[in-house]
Amino acid sequence: MADTVIDLNADLGEGFGRWRLTDDEALLTVVTSANVACGFHAGDPATMRRVCELAAARGVRIGAQVSYRDLAGFGRRSMDVPPDELAAEVAYQIGALEVFAGAAGSRVAYVKPHGALYNRVVHDEAQAAAVVAGVRLAGGLPVLGLPGSRLLAAAAEAGLPRVAEAFADRAYTAAGTLVPRSRPGAVVEDEGAVVARAVAMARDGRVTALTGEPVEVRARSLCVHGDTPGAALLAAGVRRALDEAGVRVEAFG
Amino acid sequence: MADTVIDLNADLGEGFGRWRLTDDEALLTVVTSANVACGFHAGDPATMRRVCELAAARGVRIGAQVSYRDLAGFGRRSMDVPPDELAAEVAYQIGALEVFAGAAGSRVAYVKPHGALYNRVVHDEAQAAAVVAGVRLAGGLPVLGLPGSRLLAAAAEAGLPRVAEAFADRAYTAAGTLVPRSRPGAVVEDEGAVVARAVAMARDGRVTALTGEPVEVRARSLCVHGDTPGAALLAAGVRRALDEAGVRVEAFG
Amino acid sequence: MADTVIDLNADLGEGFGRWRLTDDEALLTVVTSANVACGFHAGDPATMRRVCELAAARGVRIGAQVSYRDLAGFGRRSMDVPPDELAAEVAYQIGALEVFAGAAGSRVAYVKPHGALYNRVVHDEAQAAAVVAGVRLAGGLPVLGLPGSRLLAAAAEAGLPRVAEAFADRAYTAAGTLVPRSRPGAVVEDEGAVVARAVAMARDGRVTALTGEPVEVRARSLCVHGDTPGAALLAAGVRRALDEAGVRVEAFG
Amino acid sequence: MADTVIDLNADLGEGFGRWRLTDDEALLTVVTSANVACGFHAGDPATMRRVCELAAARGVRIGAQVSYRDLAGFGRRSMDVPPDELAAEVAYQIGALEVFAGAAGSRVAYVKPHGALYNRVVHDEAQAAAVVAGVRLAGGLPVLGLPGSRLLAAAAEAGLPRVAEAFADRAYTAAGTLVPRSRPGAVVEDEGAVVARAVAMARDGRVTALTGEPVEVRARSLCVHGDTPGAALLAAGVRRALDEAGVRVEAFG
Repeated sequence: MADTVIDLNADLGEGFGRWRLTDDEALLTVVTSANVACGFHAGDPATMRRVCELAAARGVRIGAQVSYRDLAGFGRRSMDVPPDELAAEVAYQIGALEVFAGAAGSRVAYVKPHGALYNRVVHDEAQAAAVVAGVRLAGGLPVLGLPGSRLLAAAAEAGLPRVAEAFADRAYTAAGTLVPRSRPGAVVEDEGAVVARAVAMARDGRVTALTGEPVEVRARSLCVHGDTPGAALLAAGVRRALDEAGVRVEAFG
Repeated sequence: MADTVIDLNADLGEGFGRWRLTDDEALLTVVTSANVACGFHAGDPATMRRVCELAAARGVRIGAQVSYRDLAGFGRRSMDVPPDELAAEVAYQIGALEVFAGAAGSRVAYVKPHGALYNRVVHDEAQAAAVVAGVRLAGGLPVLGLPGSRLLAAAAEAGLPRVAEAFADRAYTAAGTLVPRSRPGAVVEDEGAVVARAVAMARDGRVTALTGEPVEVRARSLCVHGDTPGAALLAAGVRRALDEAGVRVEAFG
Repeated sequence: MADTVIDLNADLGEGFGRWRLTDDEALLTVVTSANVACGFHAGDPATMRRVCELAAARGVRIGAQVSYRDLAGFGRRSMDVPPDELAAEVAYQIGALEVFAGAAGSRVAYVKPHGALYNRVVHDEAQAAAVVAGVRLAGGLPVLGLPGSRLLAAAAEAGLPRVAEAFADRAYTAAGTLVPRSRPGAVVEDEGAVVARAVAMARDGRVTALTGEPVEVRARSLCVHGDTPGAALLAAGVRRALDEAGVRVEAFG
Repeated sequence: MADTVIDLNADLGEGFGRWRLTDDEALLTVVTSANVACGFHAGDPATMRRVCELAAARGVRIGAQVSYRDLAGFGRRSMDVPPDELAAEVAYQIGALEVFAGAAGSRVAYVKPHGALYNRVVHDEAQAAAVVAGVRLAGGLPVLGLPGSRLLAAAAEAGLPRVAEAFADRAYTAAGTLVPRSRPGAVVEDEGAVVARAVAMARDGRVTALTGEPVEVRARSLCVHGDTPGAALLAAGVRRALDEAGVRVEAFG
């Protein structure tokens, strides 16, 4: 049997100063890769340090969750950042996180864009190239993103390792792409369904499209969301089901 | 003859986005150590990158000029930052700069606090210890500061190299400490006098106190200011006079 | 019988963008005065607008909760802001809030400093005067603060109305001042005790000091905290007890 | 003869804290309307206060130059801000400025979007409506913008006064629209030409298109740029030429 190993990643450390959002402690008992916010959409330095220490102590891989500079909008507002600025902003965030990962005895093992930047680099070639340029400024790291995205294409061109990810709580088209959030049914809300889809994706490499067909979804990592109430519980359910299905849950690379 | 080698340091990259302040290109032809702003009081990522590239190309040493998080106040407003937050903020800035120094083929070679933080850690033990804790989180680096300061004491305790600096444009007391800025005559405004004092400090290790006595000022680095009109010209004058006086101008360590 | 009318105030709107902190809806059913965060320590514009609309709809008075510019520290880090800058920063925040209060058919009715600024202007004459100067720039408004504080003294000198407030969950010295938070017993944690003290302060103008003596506490407003879990419930308990004790709960002036 | 009165507007107060950009004093001797930065792309509170005082003292009208929240990008990076957030952000900025205008004995007399927001609301209906919604939250004010823009259309629908502006240093198409900056010849660099075009626009309501045809440009206000070296001098030249041509230079409304 082929691909029975999967990584579980979640966004962590998405508070800022007095504010908390993600249940970092609980999620770190579940995931194998932690996308740590680096201060541009969330993530003050003391939180970054704490999350890196917790992740390192649990053997969870640390990734830089890089974003547009937009605390007020939580990085969810697409921005026309010139490529040179964007590359430097990405590198800045990676470097800042590297210090805390290193101090915890670990290191930054990959980069994943956040929010509006994640969505933008699916199709925006210039910004995708800028993110990759930023990753290279920071020494070159694996890039986590959507299969078929400009981001992964740019990473391939630059010779960087790519990690394709899938979403157990998002509906897919028959072509294997995400159903846009604006369309009804785009988000799978039933928790049992989310768990079942996670297993199907990880174990079988396929899932049922919104239109009913089976569709192939090849991913080395599954993203579980961490910023909603109940997120940690659902993530734990996904993890348990994967374990029970005999899928090895393990970080990539 | 003993101590005829001196380092010249200046604050660089102190613009932000659209705004420029320091004449980085000109100053980099003069100094041997560049205190690069790291984004908390000044210094956007693209500027940090550019200054690091210029510094590396000229063989100028790169230091992290760490600050309170205070763009609106340019880091000149003392802040009661709890030690844990301050340590993490310092480490964050060093890490961010490290990426650009590394990308330019250089590295961050020392740390110097900026503005209100610089003044605060002269006497504030808790914040001095926090800055040193931040430097250690970032791997441990030489610390540049005022002789007799709590900062250098804390660095010594932590086993970090210390670099004492002096100011050619500041008056000294007979005890060898800086005359507070609030006192008349605290700042030496005459350019010829500044140049002469720089030579006296570097070559002879002494300078005339405000009250007329000769006073010993032992420093491995001289700070020249970069954020005023004419700053680059004055710095160049200091450099030329040091060269002519047979003082070797060279980075420390 | 003398003073059987009291105002209840709480800090509201202390989220920022994606982050929430205070249960604004619940607290607005309890308090008579809403200290609305104005964007410097918390309070994005959309939140300010929403809270003003809710407050106006419920007849709750709107106050400007002004702060140091410090999102990362939630306004809890004392800052040496020069008086001219501080006055302008205070006025800026009041003006911004005024727009949303006005759009909701209400107006900004008072000013209360937040966090570290609140504590600083208890004793710091220059910053107290700067806050009052900022209030006057914004047209002059009643100032809410601690009895005996420099802030209320400066407001008196400037001819501004003052509103003295008390804290049901804070211990008092025999001299009628707050027991510093660093001392054991400074915060009253038992909810029944908090409620009883609120009634004693409002109805009788007195409370038991930490050292056992009865002490006079004359206040026109009681502050209930809103930024902890359970805060809204406790505030509701205070309100109910005041109602039952025959104390009229009503905004000031 | 018809339209021989024109307003001259410029962006002012575009520094932030330690940084200066515009020569506010010089420009205020030339223009009749000051677009004052409100803190989101530039403009700290103390600068806003100072510029309002100077403008009021010279009888120059004060306008709110509202922007995306983007200090790092100087408001020049287009952002997908949801309409509700954008409206609140616009209102916030107007309210903040209103305090300083009022304290100086003046008032905010109009609103002009800055940078990327200005360009975006030429064609983006949702953001144009959001800006207008923000202006209405702030009580309703005249809106300054490009003739034919979605912004002025939305203002018209909302019953707000509109003020059309033209640019003496920008090339026009034969259809009367601005030549995009990406095209050669888009910016008129020759100072004599800029001055002559200003006079032609103000006195004759026409100018020569890039392709040679005369084209009608009806504007009640001319924008002169303030953020480049020499800007104040060029603005003064425009003003002098208008005076000599018998054009009355006067604020609108």
